Amino acid sequence: MKSFRKTLTIHTPERRAFVNLTPKVEAALRESGIREGLCLVNSMHITSSVFVNDDERGLHHDFGAWLERLAPFDPSTEAYWHNRTGEENADAHLKRQIMGREVVVAVTEGELDFGPWEQIFYGEFDGRRDKRVLVKIIGE
Amino acid sequence: MKSFRKTLTIHTPERRAFVNLTPKVEAALRESGIREGLCLVNSMHITSSVFVNDDERGLHHDFGAWLERLAPFDPSTEAYWHNRTGEENADAHLKRQIMGREVVVAVTEGELDFGPWEQIFYGEFDGRRDKRVLVKIIGE
Amino acid sequence: MKSFRKTLTIHTPERRAFVNLTPKVEAALRESGIREGLCLVNSMHITSSVFVNDDERGLHHDFGAWLERLAPFDPSTEAYWHNRTGEENADAHLKRQIMGREVVVAVTEGELDFGPWEQIFYGEFDGRRDKRVLVKIIGE
Repeated sequence: MKSFRKTLTIHTPERRAFVNLTPKVEAALRESGIREGLCLVNSMHITSSVFVNDDERGLHHDFGAWLERLAPFDPSTEAYWHNRTGEENADAHLKRQIMGREVVVAVTEGELDFGPWEQIFYGEFDGRRDKRVLVKIIGE
Repeated sequence: MKSFRKTLTIHTPERRAFVNLTPKVEAALRESGIREGLCLVNSMHITSSVFVNDDERGLHHDFGAWLERLAPFDPSTEAYWHNRTGEENADAHLKRQIMGREVVVAVTEGELDFGPWEQIFYGEFDGRRDKRVLVKIIGE
Repeated sequence: MKSFRKTLTIHTPERRAFVNLTPKVEAALRESGIREGLCLVNSMHITSSVFVNDDERGLHHDFGAWLERLAPFDPSTEAYWHNRTGEENADAHLKRQIMGREVVVAVTEGELDFGPWEQIFYGEFDGRRDKRVLVKIIGE
């Protein structure tokens, strides 16, 4: 069994953003030389997500507006007790639970084994500083 | 290390449906001959989910009604910008994020290592055409 | 390839609670002797979750209040058809879908390969009896 590890660094100038990670994960897979196995991609932070969906800007707008309805930004310490720690990002911890921490993707014949529209995204909900995504691949 | 891959094709006549995949995943596991490892089951589409929950029809009704409250179907291009692409399935992309893309199940002594009520479901939110689910098993 | 399996038993006196599993998963990893691979941690029950987020009490309060807004407890058989089976825990099945069933964590150089704030939690939504969490590790 082979294993491979790589971190990707992401810095979004906005508080919230979606970044397509697929080319970088494909490059990591080629670098690993693994042809059959599993590829884990996860955010190493707890106010951002890694998920699979469509690379369509209108949809990303919809994700943002929807997450804001389900878990609104509110810096007050009444709305969110987490903000009593001096943070104002409680909403980002909630949004991340909806969108998920990680994806596990099958590796088949040296490729990410995806359906036609599947793309891997990083979802940032508290950006404006460096964040890391972990790619771990095991297989042969 | 052994690896095994199979796709399952699903076609639901309704727009939204839940289909129990457990027997088909168990059959794939037997076919693989793998006795210790991990089994990934994921939707290859971005408007449907694979998840683990209870095989109970009342609960499936509740899932449907709840998802409709959290992410209502609305074909308008005002409610969802994604629908400006000519689609009307933006809500299905959101519902899928709540229910998840994939499950990873432990394989122990040749069986899916489940608690007493765990069953694997396909959740369709934009059906009426062929969709595929990927089963990838690695181990020994 | 090596594989390792262990179950953790959890009993919360309250209906809803969050329990930090990280020390127990780290102990399982040491016991396994695996140094490179993947570690799956999942609830074996369908009314509880395993997820990664921050070990901060204010945030856990916020998770609880937020989940109650998104999927309120209601024992009636009108609010949730699942309760017609004689249960009153339909809301717990929904809350678990938001928070997730499982996490997959990379194992690197014999450690859980985590960012600085990542901790593994069990989220209980229908407690007051013994529940089990499965830890399955594969690698070398």
